[in-house]
Amino acid sequence: MIDLAAEFYDQFASGEVPEMTLPTRTKSNIEYDEESGVWVYGDRTSTRSANSVRGARKLLKATYTIDFLARQLEEGRSSTLRELYYLSESWETEDAAFSSQDESNQLIEDLEIVADVTREDFHMRPEESGATLMGPLELREQTRRGERDIHCQEDVGEGGYQIPNNPDTIEFLDHDIDFILCVETGGMRDRLVENGFDTDYNALIVHLKGQPARATRRITKRLHDELDLPVVVFTDGDPWSYRIYGSVAYGSIKSAHLSKYLATPEADFVGIQPEDIVEYDLPTDPLADSDVNALESELEDPRFTTDYWKEQIELQLDIGKKAEQQALASRGLDFVTDEYLPTRLDEMDIL
Amino acid sequence: MIDLAAEFYDQFASGEVPEMTLPTRTKSNIEYDEESGVWVYGDRTSTRSANSVRGARKLLKATYTIDFLARQLEEGRSSTLRELYYLSESWETEDAAFSSQDESNQLIEDLEIVADVTREDFHMRPEESGATLMGPLELREQTRRGERDIHCQEDVGEGGYQIPNNPDTIEFLDHDIDFILCVETGGMRDRLVENGFDTDYNALIVHLKGQPARATRRITKRLHDELDLPVVVFTDGDPWSYRIYGSVAYGSIKSAHLSKYLATPEADFVGIQPEDIVEYDLPTDPLADSDVNALESELEDPRFTTDYWKEQIELQLDIGKKAEQQALASRGLDFVTDEYLPTRLDEMDIL
Repeated sequence: MIDLAAEFYDQFASGEVPEMTLPTRTKSNIEYDEESGVWVYGDRTSTRSANSVRGARKLLKATYTIDFLARQLEEGRSSTLRELYYLSESWETEDAAFSSQDESNQLIEDLEIVADVTREDFHMRPEESGATLMGPLELREQTRRGERDIHCQEDVGEGGYQIPNNPDTIEFLDHDIDFILCVETGGMRDRLVENGFDTDYNALIVHLKGQPARATRRITKRLHDELDLPVVVFTDGDPWSYRIYGSVAYGSIKSAHLSKYLATPEADFVGIQPEDIVEYDLPTDPLADSDVNALESELEDPRFTTDYWKEQIELQLDIGKKAEQQALASRGLDFVTDEYLPTRLDEMDIL
Repeated sequence: MIDLAAEFYDQFASGEVPEMTLPTRTKSNIEYDEESGVWVYGDRTSTRSANSVRGARKLLKATYTIDFLARQLEEGRSSTLRELYYLSESWETEDAAFSSQDESNQLIEDLEIVADVTREDFHMRPEESGATLMGPLELREQTRRGERDIHCQEDVGEGGYQIPNNPDTIEFLDHDIDFILCVETGGMRDRLVENGFDTDYNALIVHLKGQPARATRRITKRLHDELDLPVVVFTDGDPWSYRIYGSVAYGSIKSAHLSKYLATPEADFVGIQPEDIVEYDLPTDPLADSDVNALESELEDPRFTTDYWKEQIELQLDIGKKAEQQALASRGLDFVTDEYLPTRLDEMDIL
């Protein structure tokens, strides 16, 4: 980023109009990369130039922001996107203040792309914190107050280990994990912990808490990559939950530049599968119109074009029903840990 | 609850139609109790009687549920409200299955009132887990895997200690806390932790995470009652955030029977006050119509009829603006911990 500011300086010095070049960040310039299995930007680029007042202001804001980020890193501090937006009001040049948080968010995304790092690397914390881990993992977290060595079963309460905003401060010390089980809902996460599924099966239970925060996706990816562990995702059986799986596995269109940091393309889907709804005769709700539309758009989504997903989604449209994870309780509180998960994980060659 | 089931039996045996009596749970039978400072039920009662098929079914469901809860307690297990609803499909009498989750939720609330305990006492876990603690507190949590002694600064990462679903499994061992600071947003919670506010001021920082979960309110109340510590609440400066303060301090109409377990009437409001918006010239958003309506209904709310709230709410309606906690960053990232909180807490006689 300092190089980018230096480039502006050189452009000024040589009498050129300063500019910066970025991949075009529109839907039409985002492609699904078959090889890596994640979303990436295409070849088209856009140029931000100081050849208009509006363009000059954009580069001014970028310069102030780079200055702020450089100082923040030097001082070992951090801040949130929202704080950056408000903080810009205190900058000496009034024209450098952001007019909306959308504007500052977008600039930070631009800088992520230019610098080829994540915003956590320049100490911008996400607004929303990650969820929790429970399982046979010992880790070391670098905190501002020193190192903390924490075993994610023995040193934590039933709530588990709270993932920090920037999980890259974590080092994995030791583990006895066979696979990573990402769980959508708190009710199911608590059921698995109560039933001792993490100890019985050496599973690391990652609570996704609905659509997972960046920190949760990042630590899942690191666990997969660094410890060479399989990742499986266990959600409700409806189109919105399939998207939760999709965001763990393939990333999102909105943050295509982050896929390589956040996405785990090898992650597999456990269920609830439409097939399970039929096989186990689970209590269901009828599909709403919005569910049907979402399923139909998933049929067009490159992330869901496998035979497996086509079959499941068409089955779901056919039966017109959806079911929650906790619907498995209709067969008793232990059904999920005694029957359902062992059967599914065996089918998936995880067990 | 067993007594209640025994009563049904006796009523049957003596040839009476079984029935149970409960306080009427409508808005008109809920009163603000000036003395205790929380919402309570009035004197009106309703009777659930088996003199109709519908009424008989209700009592049948109650009996099955009591049986389930008694077994759950015996076995040292727990479950969620949603699991109970699904589980009822597995009961041998088909008529005992709940037709909706509203029905099972309501029955559990009835049983809380009849038994005069919280549903956590009969091991019904909330669906949504509590948030986190950070500060000079050492506690012991009874987990299914044994006791865990945890210091909420030294034994946790930057994410803090995750409050378990039932905080009554916690014993407070030792502390160096001067006051409890409940914070609405994650961004502000992280700012306070980064700036070391908990260590500099011996504050226990409780993250409310928006409208606080039961577990968060319960542990706040226990900390206040058992350790005799002042509680202050720090939120955004808008009517919805004042309600968050209200739910910590006075409980909600919906769960009036739980006020004595969950509410901390002595909790004080730090801000953002409408007065702060003016005094510190904070970046604001204009009040939407829904904000104005909410403020006007707060003027009628017995929880907000003090001179202080009347003045603040009228000022806010007058200036037509609201501000977020993080808007304090417009004066620099340290303003909140170096200036704003020390000044306010001094005014409030906390420091």
